[in-house]
Amino acid sequence: MRDNPRLQPPGGEELLAWLRHYRLPWLSGDLVAGLVTAIMIIPQSMAYAMLAGLPVQIGLYASLLPLLGYALFGTSMSMSVGPVAVTALMTAALLAPLATVGSEQYYQLAIWLALMSGVLLFVLGLLRMGFLANFLSHPVISGFISGASILIVLSQLPHLLGLSEWPSSPAQLLTAWQPVNTLVLTMGLLALAWLLYARSRLAGHLQRLGISAGAARLLARLAPILVVLIGLLVTIAWDLGARGVPVVGSLPAGLPALVWSTPDVVTLQALLLPAALISLVSFVESVSIAQSLARRKRQSINPDRELLALGAANAGSALTGGFAVCGGFSRSGVNVEAGANTPLAGVISAVVIGLILLTIAPLFAWLPLVMLAVVILVAVAPLIDLASLQRAWRYDRREGLTLICTAAGVVLLGIEGGIVLGVGLSVVTQLWRGSRPHVAVVGRVPGTHYFRNTQRHLVETEPQLLAMRIDENIFFANTKAIERAILRALRDYPDTRELLLILSAVNHIDSTGLDMLCELSLGLRERDIQVHLAEVKGPVMDQLEQTDWIQEQVSEIFPSTHIAFNTLSGLKRPTDEAAASAQG
Amino acid sequence: MRDNPRLQPPGGEELLAWLRHYRLPWLSGDLVAGLVTAIMIIPQSMAYAMLAGLPVQIGLYASLLPLLGYALFGTSMSMSVGPVAVTALMTAALLAPLATVGSEQYYQLAIWLALMSGVLLFVLGLLRMGFLANFLSHPVISGFISGASILIVLSQLPHLLGLSEWPSSPAQLLTAWQPVNTLVLTMGLLALAWLLYARSRLAGHLQRLGISAGAARLLARLAPILVVLIGLLVTIAWDLGARGVPVVGSLPAGLPALVWSTPDVVTLQALLLPAALISLVSFVESVSIAQSLARRKRQSINPDRELLALGAANAGSALTGGFAVCGGFSRSGVNVEAGANTPLAGVISAVVIGLILLTIAPLFAWLPLVMLAVVILVAVAPLIDLASLQRAWRYDRREGLTLICTAAGVVLLGIEGGIVLGVGLSVVTQLWRGSRPHVAVVGRVPGTHYFRNTQRHLVETEPQLLAMRIDENIFFANTKAIERAILRALRDYPDTRELLLILSAVNHIDSTGLDMLCELSLGLRERDIQVHLAEVKGPVMDQLEQTDWIQEQVSEIFPSTHIAFNTLSGLKRPTDEAAASAQG
Repeated sequence: MRDNPRLQPPGGEELLAWLRHYRLPWLSGDLVAGLVTAIMIIPQSMAYAMLAGLPVQIGLYASLLPLLGYALFGTSMSMSVGPVAVTALMTAALLAPLATVGSEQYYQLAIWLALMSGVLLFVLGLLRMGFLANFLSHPVISGFISGASILIVLSQLPHLLGLSEWPSSPAQLLTAWQPVNTLVLTMGLLALAWLLYARSRLAGHLQRLGISAGAARLLARLAPILVVLIGLLVTIAWDLGARGVPVVGSLPAGLPALVWSTPDVVTLQALLLPAALISLVSFVESVSIAQSLARRKRQSINPDRELLALGAANAGSALTGGFAVCGGFSRSGVNVEAGANTPLAGVISAVVIGLILLTIAPLFAWLPLVMLAVVILVAVAPLIDLASLQRAWRYDRREGLTLICTAAGVVLLGIEGGIVLGVGLSVVTQLWRGSRPHVAVVGRVPGTHYFRNTQRHLVETEPQLLAMRIDENIFFANTKAIERAILRALRDYPDTRELLLILSAVNHIDSTGLDMLCELSLGLRERDIQVHLAEVKGPVMDQLEQTDWIQEQVSEIFPSTHIAFNTLSGLKRPTDEAAASAQG
Repeated sequence: MRDNPRLQPPGGEELLAWLRHYRLPWLSGDLVAGLVTAIMIIPQSMAYAMLAGLPVQIGLYASLLPLLGYALFGTSMSMSVGPVAVTALMTAALLAPLATVGSEQYYQLAIWLALMSGVLLFVLGLLRMGFLANFLSHPVISGFISGASILIVLSQLPHLLGLSEWPSSPAQLLTAWQPVNTLVLTMGLLALAWLLYARSRLAGHLQRLGISAGAARLLARLAPILVVLIGLLVTIAWDLGARGVPVVGSLPAGLPALVWSTPDVVTLQALLLPAALISLVSFVESVSIAQSLARRKRQSINPDRELLALGAANAGSALTGGFAVCGGFSRSGVNVEAGANTPLAGVISAVVIGLILLTIAPLFAWLPLVMLAVVILVAVAPLIDLASLQRAWRYDRREGLTLICTAAGVVLLGIEGGIVLGVGLSVVTQLWRGSRPHVAVVGRVPGTHYFRNTQRHLVETEPQLLAMRIDENIFFANTKAIERAILRALRDYPDTRELLLILSAVNHIDSTGLDMLCELSLGLRERDIQVHLAEVKGPVMDQLEQTDWIQEQVSEIFPSTHIAFNTLSGLKRPTDEAAASAQG
């Protein structure tokens, strides 16, 4: 297995390593994958353009240069980049306040949004700022995707009913209902049934017909193209467009022309936050897809290079009049299953889509919108991720709550509100957790070198020695709690003369924590209690070394609790009274 | 010492414990302290009222009921509550956008601000929310106080020049300059020189005159009253008010009348954030003063009861037409030095101030404003805390930077901006620190049970066993960094068959961290590397126990690194190849 060249990552850090070291055996896989993925991408791209509030051909335009841009810089060998549901929704939601959906200005803004995102991603890549994405926790990402998916499903339901927008009331829906709506709904439900069947059963049934497992899975994933073809045939045959079924309408032949307007500074400023949000989400989603694909093939990816690649992809999309793109989960899945070995597969997909634009694209004008809506519904509904919610909830209620609040925030407050709420909650949760530290009085497990919590284990302690393990970094949010815990323990063990603080789990002490320790030690010295430390970590010791606290107020620092216990439990320090009476 | 009843805290959790258990020997100290503190408070209170943009008598009104309110609920035996510089500045800064300084509406808003702060503090006390103050780190508090002090000093400089406001340009200052300005400046500089002398040298010189150290210190702290008295005498003798020296002006005799207007809902909403900020700052400042006083006398305070007491104090201030109050550092210092044993001293101060209001208060009408400005300058300048900045900077650059940014934020962006900036920075610093975890490859110190970083110590390792200690909680901001560190170590030790993760310093793993560990273990299993854990803390184990990761992907969990090392280094697991060749 390990010597199979097809499974080896084609290169290291150099650009286009896959091309420089290209091997002929990879070609057949790349060719097939490029063709199959292109066929799968076509209905999806048009559907996501519709979701973004743009003419459907824009989805095809956004499927050309991004694949080449990613091939130039990307480090994933099998990810496929293009229009995806979440960034399409974000484009629509973020541009709606700035221009009327469907207007020429709206379209120009969508292009500029893609260009700004591209530049931003590229610059972040040059600055190696990929780590920024780490500040989105999994519950926030999962909540965001679920919330966005709910919004997408809601936005597509009117198309399923043959309406142009949500009816304002059930009564209005009844008055507006016409035979053509019933026709559209029937077509939609049939397509839905077919796609759901294709997702769950088709592969199994094809296998029973003697088709290999891999090919069967691949054919099942191409089911949407059948929906598009049959939809087209039916509409053309019975001229449904003229009878009131909403169809795509005019669709120009040929490759996109580069017609750009120059927006004013105010517009650019208004696009800055949307571009930042789209960049963040694109990056997080693409990298997590690229990582899971790389892991399967024992390859690895480079997040900073991915930023460059996504930047180039988005800038490329803008250049050909496309909208924001990112790595797609289902399209990448098809790409892998069809045997893609390198980004050449993506380049071939781009060529295929280009050929289609040059030839049969005008035919798509007859495509009923309901078919695209159904493609979206089936692609997006599984993204409403209840399993993640259940897992997060079971592991930690607070994280489950963060997930729910993020999703609810996206649905009720919008894209920005949801992300800000989620990040805020995950930061507060983290601080809150750190503010409730576990502080344990420990004793020796009899006959060993081990020390354990007196409340969880049967251990030996010494009356004049109180050993406490602080199980948290000491920082502003928990200094009071740690001080209280120590003072409480001193009340419970009133004979204490030596306080041993075990810092094995303390990885950092901030200045607020240091101030607390100073004042605590001062107070204890007045009560004739000495403070000792054990198991101070290297980096913590480096920082403490120069402080007055260590130099003046801490008696001894022991390398291990065991040595500290042996030394301090044998210690017979004269008390004030004993010293006084000895003098008297 | 320990049996001296005067040094014993007068009671526990019950209300008015100090009164129920009052002992006669305490009375003389309380009487003297009450009287001395009242004399010291009078000029300060009037000065801080001026700072707050209010008539000077309001400062005296705010020195009556707050002392009684605090005596009722407070747990500090020696803190003195009343107008202080920082809350006076906050009152002025937060109300300036809402009403014209000096107008009747402004005064009413100041009263309502005190009342809302009082109610808020009281409610927080009932809900035991004292822990909220922990989220202000020491650099933020110190930066805030320094920034506020700079603002206060800047606000008082025009008074020192006999101007009503800052001159708009040096040229304007020259044209406005008159003989009376020179007179005011001279009076101010003389008073300033006297107060600075009193602060640094007076106590020593008095001691040389045969006065006891304690009495000398106390007399030196009463120096401001001499400034007020001489200022009054000089002004009355030469009728300086009529010659253009700005004086206090009319000042009504008698106790405050309770004249309240009812504000509208919009105004109340506008006051909500200011009230919350004043409550937060009052609480943090008062509690830190109360704690440092209690520590000196080996007493203790209860933060939740302090919230109730401050709430009652502020509500009391509002009832008598006063503004927001809190525990003051210098007034409490005088109180302690004058021998206060219980809050009775505060009650006596209130009585003394009430008597002064009923008798000689109208005389203060002749007091030059410059005297009050000098009292403020000398009280506030030492609060610009460069020593804290130096300490924080030396301990940790980032904390020093947080302090500077908070102070600069207060000066440049205002009170709210400064606090928000400071809290934001300290949270980001904390997250950023956690996002760069220390992860060490460890080995056994020869002949011992101890394990240390291979890069810091000479230790023994085993080729097929990689033991890594993770020195940080595993959470969303650092999962990628930890994963990278582990994968890098596996590259450096390519013969690794057993990966031992030592979790002695991991106090929490969040769901993002758990997901990372799961995926990492899956990937390693494919590379035929087993994952083991050692020294998992009780609370972490409780949470992990139910997860698929522990149950399916972790091989063994060892109580100590020593046992893990002994077990795993002896382990001879057949490799895939060996197993294959054995089968072949």
